[in-house]
Amino acid sequence: MKKVLLFLALLLILAACKNSTTEKNIAETKSAIDLNGAIKVVENAQQIFTDLFKKGDSFGVANIYTIDAKVMNAGSPAAEGRDSIIKFFGKIFRSGPKIITVKTIGVWNSTNIIVEEGKWIMADKRGNEYDHGKYLILWKMEDGKWKKFRDCHNSDIYPITK
Amino acid sequence: MKKVLLFLALLLILAACKNSTTEKNIAETKSAIDLNGAIKVVENAQQIFTDLFKKGDSFGVANIYTIDAKVMNAGSPAAEGRDSIIKFFGKIFRSGPKIITVKTIGVWNSTNIIVEEGKWIMADKRGNEYDHGKYLILWKMEDGKWKKFRDCHNSDIYPITK
Repeated sequence: MKKVLLFLALLLILAACKNSTTEKNIAETKSAIDLNGAIKVVENAQQIFTDLFKKGDSFGVANIYTIDAKVMNAGSPAAEGRDSIIKFFGKIFRSGPKIITVKTIGVWNSTNIIVEEGKWIMADKRGNEYDHGKYLILWKMEDGKWKKFRDCHNSDIYPITK
Repeated sequence: MKKVLLFLALLLILAACKNSTTEKNIAETKSAIDLNGAIKVVENAQQIFTDLFKKGDSFGVANIYTIDAKVMNAGSPAAEGRDSIIKFFGKIFRSGPKIITVKTIGVWNSTNIIVEEGKWIMADKRGNEYDHGKYLILWKMEDGKWKKFRDCHNSDIYPITK
């Protein structure tokens, strides 16, 4: 009887081990599963954003952003934080009603991507600065090396980098 | 003796389960561990980028990008793919030697961030388009909602969105 109990205990422990392995596999494929959800999340939120934008609701639009968000617009330093973002959109809306359309063409939700935020300065060969701005860069592994996969940047001052 | 063997077998299985749990914990904290590595990866690669940029080496600079990369520059559609990226930097370098400095101020390597690439169109209230461009947006969870955390965009045409 004791042997039977021990055998049952063994089976139970093996079953627990099996569960643990299954959980690990799920964790490993989690990013792929999350990706479909991520697309829906982003598209739904962007729909709310464009609706509020059309209404010229700077408070509503700013609420689509986190408290500590940065709107990295061209031609000015980033609008950082809730108050600055409300003002940023307020200025856009005061210049007249507008319709914005956005189209999601890629979504990543994975540790296979490194996201970098940064600032850049451009100078002539003597080192005299003539332009500066900000960027978001996505890094992706290619042939064993992390390389730039998307590089979106703009100037705080100039329209187009000279 | 058999009972002792069974007990030992139990211990071994429990040890195997323990190992499995440890592996899972490592996997769960992986993004935090990777983050320090990610900063080094990005800063090292950016150093190579700025060195090659200073030399005006458009082939070398383009090789910092993946084969299918997009340089999302202001004032033009994105330069997409190796050939376009070589041409893009070639044009910059032909206009004279330059020094670029980049400073990494944030790095994310986690499934807690959704990255979105997209295109935007701006129209007046009648729906007449007057500007369009591209963006990278980072989405982050705040109070149970995915919100925009970083929003870097620029126009394919105009310097600053009207």
